[in-house]
Amino acid sequence: MDFASDNASGLSEVVLAALIAASRGSAPAYGADALTQRAETLLGELFGCETRSFLVTTGTAANALALAALTPPWGAIFCHEDAHITEDECGAPEMFSAGAKLVGVAGEQGKLTPQTLESELQRYVPGLVKQTQPAAVSISQATECGTLYRRAEIAAIGKFAHNRGMSLHMDGARFANALASLGGSAADITWRAGVDVLSFGATKNGTLACEAVVFFDLAKAEHFAFRRKRAGQTLSKGRFLGAQMVAYLENAHWLALATHANAMAERLSKGLAGLSDVAIAWPTEINEVFAIVPSAADRALKAAGARYHDWSARCLPAPVAAGEDKVLVRLVTSFASEAGDIDRVIEIVRSAR
Amino acid sequence: MDFASDNASGLSEVVLAALIAASRGSAPAYGADALTQRAETLLGELFGCETRSFLVTTGTAANALALAALTPPWGAIFCHEDAHITEDECGAPEMFSAGAKLVGVAGEQGKLTPQTLESELQRYVPGLVKQTQPAAVSISQATECGTLYRRAEIAAIGKFAHNRGMSLHMDGARFANALASLGGSAADITWRAGVDVLSFGATKNGTLACEAVVFFDLAKAEHFAFRRKRAGQTLSKGRFLGAQMVAYLENAHWLALATHANAMAERLSKGLAGLSDVAIAWPTEINEVFAIVPSAADRALKAAGARYHDWSARCLPAPVAAGEDKVLVRLVTSFASEAGDIDRVIEIVRSAR
Amino acid sequence: MDFASDNASGLSEVVLAALIAASRGSAPAYGADALTQRAETLLGELFGCETRSFLVTTGTAANALALAALTPPWGAIFCHEDAHITEDECGAPEMFSAGAKLVGVAGEQGKLTPQTLESELQRYVPGLVKQTQPAAVSISQATECGTLYRRAEIAAIGKFAHNRGMSLHMDGARFANALASLGGSAADITWRAGVDVLSFGATKNGTLACEAVVFFDLAKAEHFAFRRKRAGQTLSKGRFLGAQMVAYLENAHWLALATHANAMAERLSKGLAGLSDVAIAWPTEINEVFAIVPSAADRALKAAGARYHDWSARCLPAPVAAGEDKVLVRLVTSFASEAGDIDRVIEIVRSAR
Amino acid sequence: MDFASDNASGLSEVVLAALIAASRGSAPAYGADALTQRAETLLGELFGCETRSFLVTTGTAANALALAALTPPWGAIFCHEDAHITEDECGAPEMFSAGAKLVGVAGEQGKLTPQTLESELQRYVPGLVKQTQPAAVSISQATECGTLYRRAEIAAIGKFAHNRGMSLHMDGARFANALASLGGSAADITWRAGVDVLSFGATKNGTLACEAVVFFDLAKAEHFAFRRKRAGQTLSKGRFLGAQMVAYLENAHWLALATHANAMAERLSKGLAGLSDVAIAWPTEINEVFAIVPSAADRALKAAGARYHDWSARCLPAPVAAGEDKVLVRLVTSFASEAGDIDRVIEIVRSAR
Repeated sequence: MDFASDNASGLSEVVLAALIAASRGSAPAYGADALTQRAETLLGELFGCETRSFLVTTGTAANALALAALTPPWGAIFCHEDAHITEDECGAPEMFSAGAKLVGVAGEQGKLTPQTLESELQRYVPGLVKQTQPAAVSISQATECGTLYRRAEIAAIGKFAHNRGMSLHMDGARFANALASLGGSAADITWRAGVDVLSFGATKNGTLACEAVVFFDLAKAEHFAFRRKRAGQTLSKGRFLGAQMVAYLENAHWLALATHANAMAERLSKGLAGLSDVAIAWPTEINEVFAIVPSAADRALKAAGARYHDWSARCLPAPVAAGEDKVLVRLVTSFASEAGDIDRVIEIVRSAR
Repeated sequence: MDFASDNASGLSEVVLAALIAASRGSAPAYGADALTQRAETLLGELFGCETRSFLVTTGTAANALALAALTPPWGAIFCHEDAHITEDECGAPEMFSAGAKLVGVAGEQGKLTPQTLESELQRYVPGLVKQTQPAAVSISQATECGTLYRRAEIAAIGKFAHNRGMSLHMDGARFANALASLGGSAADITWRAGVDVLSFGATKNGTLACEAVVFFDLAKAEHFAFRRKRAGQTLSKGRFLGAQMVAYLENAHWLALATHANAMAERLSKGLAGLSDVAIAWPTEINEVFAIVPSAADRALKAAGARYHDWSARCLPAPVAAGEDKVLVRLVTSFASEAGDIDRVIEIVRSAR
Repeated sequence: MDFASDNASGLSEVVLAALIAASRGSAPAYGADALTQRAETLLGELFGCETRSFLVTTGTAANALALAALTPPWGAIFCHEDAHITEDECGAPEMFSAGAKLVGVAGEQGKLTPQTLESELQRYVPGLVKQTQPAAVSISQATECGTLYRRAEIAAIGKFAHNRGMSLHMDGARFANALASLGGSAADITWRAGVDVLSFGATKNGTLACEAVVFFDLAKAEHFAFRRKRAGQTLSKGRFLGAQMVAYLENAHWLALATHANAMAERLSKGLAGLSDVAIAWPTEINEVFAIVPSAADRALKAAGARYHDWSARCLPAPVAAGEDKVLVRLVTSFASEAGDIDRVIEIVRSAR
Repeated sequence: MDFASDNASGLSEVVLAALIAASRGSAPAYGADALTQRAETLLGELFGCETRSFLVTTGTAANALALAALTPPWGAIFCHEDAHITEDECGAPEMFSAGAKLVGVAGEQGKLTPQTLESELQRYVPGLVKQTQPAAVSISQATECGTLYRRAEIAAIGKFAHNRGMSLHMDGARFANALASLGGSAADITWRAGVDVLSFGATKNGTLACEAVVFFDLAKAEHFAFRRKRAGQTLSKGRFLGAQMVAYLENAHWLALATHANAMAERLSKGLAGLSDVAIAWPTEINEVFAIVPSAADRALKAAGARYHDWSARCLPAPVAAGEDKVLVRLVTSFASEAGDIDRVIEIVRSAR
């Protein structure tokens, strides 16, 4: 019963098979191989436009390098105050950008809006030398609250950012879960809505260590190969990144994996929501369930060996947060989650009285 | 016939089996898993002393992060003028160290000596504020010329460095090939000879993407976990780094792989050396053969589909370099090289008249 | 009628005389001269303890270099959300610290408290690798609202910081105005209250371009000479920094200058406070008056040639901010302000009906 | 008898008078004042073309910031191996450029040539991701050997740099001495010869602390105001930088100062050259004399209280360096040097037998 994170899971059988197939023979190094080329082609096809894609090994690298490509060292990047890029990457964006400033903005359900951005941007006078210069907006799809931006919400932020001369970055660590939940096309919630560069996650959803930085604003990709190399993110045996991504994308395997993870979360969320004394902090839209449960249930779950994280967030709804002897927990499902475990968790919480 | 580099090879069967075994079930993320712990234990046992080890995905990351742990931003790092860290990593050490200076020193066969270091260090006045401050010496074992430092040579450099208050780093991208060639213990050519931190390579020798930064000077490791995270080198599914390293080290598998690669290079070197009009630029001590061959042979090899790199180095012996209509080429063998390909290369060169 | 900032003023006669006296003859370069040594001695005497002081040319350099000495690149520095270091230095602290994160904390009258810091620090788990590591707290004395921390307030913050293993930095761009207003000793509101390093401002208060970074935690000063040189802040003709600081400090000249500036601000503040339709946003404790005046008065002042800045701050008291057709303005006096100009401003505002 | 450096001198009377005149009254801060505007205008007139100029306080800041504007963090800057930017600035260019690499090139008399640059550039393959990317060439006028580039020499380097897509930077810490010696126009040895950005020194030649970064390639100046602010080099009382530069430039005062310094050096050089057992290491072309004198003379000079530095340089002519019991010394004259001191030095050396 491991709900600590989707990165606690292993590899999908399809991805594993691709790694095995790629393990023999020789291939050009540093991404000049056929699999890497194929991966970049498939990413272009997925988004239905001209893109430039770069494979890296972690989400932190994808985000930090992508942001570094969008901001000068004296730039400001606006993101939600609970965003992974500012809270959970040990300053990687600051390092790779040579000192840009991440500005956290409050917002319900982990989201930014043109209004909250506008109130923050009011302080910035274009060209005022003493200030950092607004360079980019970064949104997480799905958010750190497990919620989703609708296309119109993204488009509104994209329009706002571009009107202010800023680029729009999307942290898509769980982009697969987001698209599987929203339906529609990957294009609609990225470049068609104004996203200039996307951190396209794959690791949490069944690969070994593979993320793609996908540029829709091709000009911003001009020097990215140097940034990636200099960051130690250009694998010598690049074929293995290519193999993971190709297997992940072909036959919409990535969406099948995410659809399962989402379904498991929905099952868990509905089961918990039906219990008295349990509340769901934010709508369950992907593969994360944020539940406020009685401390007794928390203790029972842990006693039963369930793994998950107690949680906190600055945008937690007050009414939900209220109530003594309760705890907010985050339960994350994955492509590998099993219905039996889900039901067992629900039963343990029900019984813990 | 791929001799472009040992990183053109794939995975050893043993490493692949370990990845398959690790692919199922759940495990704690970010290196808190049992396989990662086991890998760190095995590295400590290998070197027979207390060590702190950190797994990363590339040699560039291992070198740049290790060096960053040894120098302040205003420090100077002394290395051979042909060293990989200064010539082939796109400035990664400068970035991760926040601007330290790599100082290239000339030397035969890609090596540094206390004498060449001394002549360079003469310019540095301890504490003189206008100068960068000597912080570390970095040597490559094996060198970029495919040659090896003997224990006494390393110890002499280690003593020199420590007497000057500098740390000693070893770039061991091909450490396995070096130890397999030299024999003896890993300890003798590292910490017992004064090495403070080692970039322990595994990728070129049969793993997917796995290197270890091994600290013998434990104090220098104090903040390394933050450096690694911030660099985007802390894999969420860390178990897969652990699995590679454990399989690589257990039963001396790594030395068996390297021994084969070295033997293939020796076979190739001896075969070519026996031919008129062919010269070996530097002694073949590991799995790299640097040969000066007639241009006709070079053309014939390429026509036959052989892959390898034309080469150049500032420390190329003048007499060898001389001679018109000849070219210096680097032929690299690996754990996967086959004797048949070796013999075919020799035959093509012999026949190319 | 220039109230734009105290840095719009020129030089005190005493400081000018010192520069003239220093302008002849030769002297050792880079701070090895007698005047610089004398300045460092006087700073030590002023604070009544062992200190290490370094002269630089700007407050931005003093703050950014001081903070860089207190934090690793992966560190977090906590300051008020309106602090000059995070709002008005174009990311200098981020650059000189190689990417540390400035965390803005809300607080009334531009102040931090142990309580507001505690609520922010709750999110930080000691040693948690994914987070930046709390390294320092920075407070401005006087604050960006022109208010002052009392000794007890500083001591409480100092105790909080040290208990959390953080250092305490004080941005003393207007330290002279603060001490002149509070009275007592410089020691009481710095090292005796837990301040580890002080940016001791002099430029705004009558010098040409001279600030001192004063270390009370001597260990933190160990490498500062390299940081200053590397930042281009080690003047070759260092004697001129020494001359300014010596003249500034001798005979308590600096406090005399600040006392005048404060008195002019008090005169202005009282005059304006006596008018209907005018409110003072924050208590006038140094040489800055923040007044909410009718737009008609604002127009009249500007028409009369008065120079000052319209202002905004996130910690503006709501009741004060309220009211249509009014504007918040900042009026800054200096050592050179004249009572006549003050009274003229008051008269213009009174008449603007 | 202070010949340690021209920065051991004080202020020219003209510059001092300008500072006194600027010391009263109020002026807009941060370079928005009339004197700063006037200085920028005069610099444009001096070079007879459209320029963008930025005043800073030190040569290290001017060089490091100028270079940072010409290179990406993964760039390579080629300079003489004895260049001040790589030997004497404690890594400032590396810091401000976020990690660019300075590549030292050997050359006689402290000079680069297209030939020596070509031999170094051979190793660089355009676009090869593993290498740093050639971004700029930096030459010192005058050189660190006190020698001068003629217009044709500069033009040849400029053409080489531009053909390779690199910018050309000139470190003009002693540009005044160079132009005073060469005659002709400032334009001829800068932009007309391909210089894209010049560090225009004034401090060594009679100002307090004032250098200008002069951009001839205007596009490279686009973001410089942010770089300067972020570096803590934007003085709040900017008028004092403007005042120094205006006084320095008006009526060709700067050339008059340099002409005197050069004449004093010529007098010293000729006097010493006439003595047996004394050799001049490099032609005396500006205000620096590099002499190989008997150790007895060296001792006698120091006993007499003469201040100067023993010297070393990698490009010292072997024949000159040879000879036991001799020492290479650097004697620097300035606008303030007096003939009597010059003659006294010569006499002491003559008598020291």
